[in-house]
Order: sequence, then C-alpha cells, then structure tokens
Amino acid sequence: MNTTLDVALIQNSCDDDARVNLAAQVARIREAANDGARLVLLQELHNHRYFCQVEDPALFDLAEPVPGPTTEALAALAAELGVVIVASLFERRAAGLYHNTAVVLDSDGRLAGRYRKMHIPDDPGYHEKFYFTPGDTGFAPVDTAVGRLGVLVCWDQWYPEAARLMTLAGADLLLYPTAIGWDDQDDRDEQQRQLDAWRTSQRAHAIANGLPVLSCNRCGTEPDPAGHGPGIRFWGHSFVCGPQGEILAEADEHPRVLHTRIDRRRSEQVRRIWPFLRDRRIDEYAPLLNRYND
Amino acid sequence: MNTTLDVALIQNSCDDDARVNLAAQVARIREAANDGARLVLLQELHNHRYFCQVEDPALFDLAEPVPGPTTEALAALAAELGVVIVASLFERRAAGLYHNTAVVLDSDGRLAGRYRKMHIPDDPGYHEKFYFTPGDTGFAPVDTAVGRLGVLVCWDQWYPEAARLMTLAGADLLLYPTAIGWDDQDDRDEQQRQLDAWRTSQRAHAIANGLPVLSCNRCGTEPDPAGHGPGIRFWGHSFVCGPQGEILAEADEHPRVLHTRIDRRRSEQVRRIWPFLRDRRIDEYAPLLNRYND
Repeated sequence: MNTTLDVALIQNSCDDDARVNLAAQVARIREAANDGARLVLLQELHNHRYFCQVEDPALFDLAEPVPGPTTEALAALAAELGVVIVASLFERRAAGLYHNTAVVLDSDGRLAGRYRKMHIPDDPGYHEKFYFTPGDTGFAPVDTAVGRLGVLVCWDQWYPEAARLMTLAGADLLLYPTAIGWDDQDDRDEQQRQLDAWRTSQRAHAIANGLPVLSCNRCGTEPDPAGHGPGIRFWGHSFVCGPQGEILAEADEHPRVLHTRIDRRRSEQVRRIWPFLRDRRIDEYAPLLNRYND
Repeated sequence: MNTTLDVALIQNSCDDDARVNLAAQVARIREAANDGARLVLLQELHNHRYFCQVEDPALFDLAEPVPGPTTEALAALAAELGVVIVASLFERRAAGLYHNTAVVLDSDGRLAGRYRKMHIPDDPGYHEKFYFTPGDTGFAPVDTAVGRLGVLVCWDQWYPEAARLMTLAGADLLLYPTAIGWDDQDDRDEQQRQLDAWRTSQRAHAIANGLPVLSCNRCGTEPDPAGHGPGIRFWGHSFVCGPQGEILAEADEHPRVLHTRIDRRRSEQVRRIWPFLRDRRIDEYAPLLNRYND
C-alpha cells in the first residue's frame, strides 16, 4: 500500500430532484479522480434534500434498496475510475424497515460493505427517529483497496464510543458523511460554538485513536417544507485532519471538492509517542455499558 | 446551589523544595479565595518538581500518606477560607505501593474523597509506571459543597472513556490536575500540534458529556536530573471550557491564578439541544471492554 493516500470530499448543496443530485455527485467524483483522488467521500443522504425536517410517511418513497440503482451507478463509476467511493443512502430494507446507510464501493466496483447508522438523532428539524431504524451492523470497518475504512454517519460523530470501536476493530481512517447546519434563529455566538464543537469533537476522535478523520458535510440552505421554521443552513466546513487532530484541509460554506493528501505513516508514528491504546483500563470500563450509573 | 460558580486554577512553576512549593500554593489559594473563587484546582504533583523524568528508588521518599501533612494543611485552609480545594499528591499507601492521587478538601475542611490516577503513562521523560500503581478507585466523582466533582489526572485526559464514566456517575464538572510539556528537541510545528491536541481532547470531553472542564497544568522548565536530555518545558495553558467546549478562560505559559465564572445552568440547556446521553448504543458497546478486537 502506498505511504500516501489522496482523498477528496464532495461538499454540495442539494436540489429537489434526486437525479440532478446524483448527476452532480458523479460529475464531482470524476473531477476528484481526475485530480488524483483514490478515495472519495460523499455527504450524508446526498441524493436528496434533507427530508427529515418534517415527518411525512410519503417520503419513505425516497428510499431504495442496497444494492440498488444508486449503488449500481456508483459501483460502475468506482470501477471505471479505479477509486473507492463512500456514499450515503436512504435504504429500504423491508416494508416499514428503513435505515440511514453508508455504502462502500471498492475500486473494482464491488459493494465492499455497508454501515447502518447506529446513533439516531431526533431534534426539531432533524426527525430521524421517524425515518431510520437504528443500525444493527455494529461498528465494523470495511476493507477496501485503500485500507480498512471506519465509516460512521453524522450523529455518530458526537460519540467517542463509536470512534473507539472502529479503531479497536482495526480501522485505518474514520469517515463521516454528515448533514448538519445552523438554525438562523440562533445568534452568531451560538452558531460559532456549534460549528467549533462539531469540528472539535471529530478532531478529538483522531487524537484519541491516532488516525485520520474525514468529515463531509452538506452546504446550502434548505427551507422547512412545512413552512413553520427558518429551515436549515447546512454549514459545510468539511475537513480532513491527521492523527494529532491537525487540520489538513477544510472547506468553507460553499460547494467544493476538498482534496488533500494523507501521510499513512503518521498513525504509526503518533501512536508510538502517544500509546493510548496501551493503557486503556478495560478492567474498569464495564459501567460504560449502562445507560446511567445512578 | 448558586447558578454560577467562581473557580480558580493555580498554574505554577516548581522549586526543588517541597515546603516552598506548598507555601506558594497556599498563598495563591488565599489570593484566589480573596477574589471570590469557591473552587480551587491545583496542578498535578504540585509539591514537587516532576520527579518522574528519572527512575530512582530514593524518590519514593517524596511520597506521603493520605490523609497526611499536605491534606491536613490544605483541609485547614479550605475550612478557613470556605473553599473547595482539589489537590494532587504522591501518595504512599503501603511499602512498595504508591499512587498518583488527587484529593478533594471540602469547604468545611473534610477530606471529601480521593481519586487514584487510573491511566498511567510511561514515555521517555515520564516514567510514571515505575512510581505509580494504577488506581483502584474506579471513576467515582466526589460530592462537595460546590457539586459533584469528576476529578481525573493528566494522562486520563486522553481517554474519552474516563470522562464518560465520570459523567455517567453524575459528575457536574470534570477537573484535571496535569503536568505536560514540550521536549525542546521537537520542532515548533510538532510542539504546536501537541498543545492543540491536548486542549482539543479535553474540550471534546466537555462537548461529548455536556459539562464544564477545568484543566490545570504546571509551567516552567525543569531540567533532566540525569543530564541526558533537555528536560521538560511544561507548557502551562491551563484552561476552563463550558459544556460546548467553548473556552471561558485560558492561561499562557507563565505562572497564573486563572479565575473565571461558570454558569451552572448551561449543562442543562446544552444537554437539551444535544441529548447525546439519550442515544448511546449500550447494546453494542461491549467490545469497548476488550484490549483490541482482532
């Protein structure tokens, strides 16, 4: 395996039309591959506007099976370009059983694996518990031509447990397709704290686990379909950091193919000076399996 | 309990003489209390230069029992001033059994509790596994007049498990006495990455758990007693952050009483908008209790 890995994150705003969105992803993936990327990460639920702003049973029509039309299209593209693609889909598994699912298309076009979002949020504007059954895949990384990928999704990014479990299962990188934004009813200070907390939380996963983190977030404003609120201004700011949490590349709030190069040798070096895995007190961690220790 | 809490962190450089160091702590605690602090956090092993730069059996003479002379002096001071003091000692528990122990003196002078450092580092210049038996106190916060204190020590700051366990046991605040610094053989970029990673890791504990974090680090350069290396330049930069990881106060590299006010209502507010404790996948966390899942 090469000592460096060129990666690209496709940060986009979304249209109402899923075909337009997928075509935009495909065009950007081609652009990224043409610029040398071997691993391309897409944002969460990139085929659609963020439909979870409202609860509407009709919106389950947006879901598709895995494998299905999108994985077939992206698998063919991955094979054609020789890149690994990490995509994010609204998966229909059975009638009444849907997931928020990341899929990994290997550079030979194989569907290498999937990860069904394990931590499901539910907040005003993010009604995900209505749409997504919590994943039953566990925290299992996916082996690909560019390494073992610890793919997690959005709300997972706030959970150090998820990052640690992927690490303990041998992940070389952590990847987060995500869709998070501001409520414009919040003041600027609150918005800045939220963005900074989001970045800090994920950089800390890199540090605690001594591996690079890639986080790809959507951008653009999407109005509330019910017309009750201001909608969501997705904050973009996709980034890649190294195993000390150091920022290697970061986008602003606009659509962007964020390209950077990862030095794969750094994890080995950093884990030698900061051997956190050596000293975990596994004999005393059992209470982590409780809801609350009261 | 008041909605605000005034806290002070005593960041100091250390002298060769333990009596001088303790006298300096006492003077600074008086200053902090006079300025209104109700909770005072001292740095790790504040009575001594950082003796773990070398392995020397004679240095076990520096240890003392708990309760013992230092806790008695600080307990009397806590009662006199009506403040809670979190201190850090080299504890002699029995012949051949020593700990790196944080002690909590309540504002009535009671020794409210102790925490024996659970994660023990061992790196060039930080030979702690020679001196300190890993703690057997578990991750148990200490109840005081100013709230339930989740006291952890230094190397623990790199472990999200420790912060989470204190939170699940009901901690209102996390506190880290610490002693970390630069190796001047590292270049400036590496030094900056280390400092930023250290701060980021602890800010992330605040975010993941929705509570304030106080971290008190020593400062000043201490030469290598063996004369083999450049010694350690302790980087100071003690800080306090709120439950979104937002910095409330931060020191530079110089001695300082870092005073700030915490709004105790913020944890309740932040945990309502970011209810991370609600969605933990405790059904899938069991592999956290393994060393590595290979």
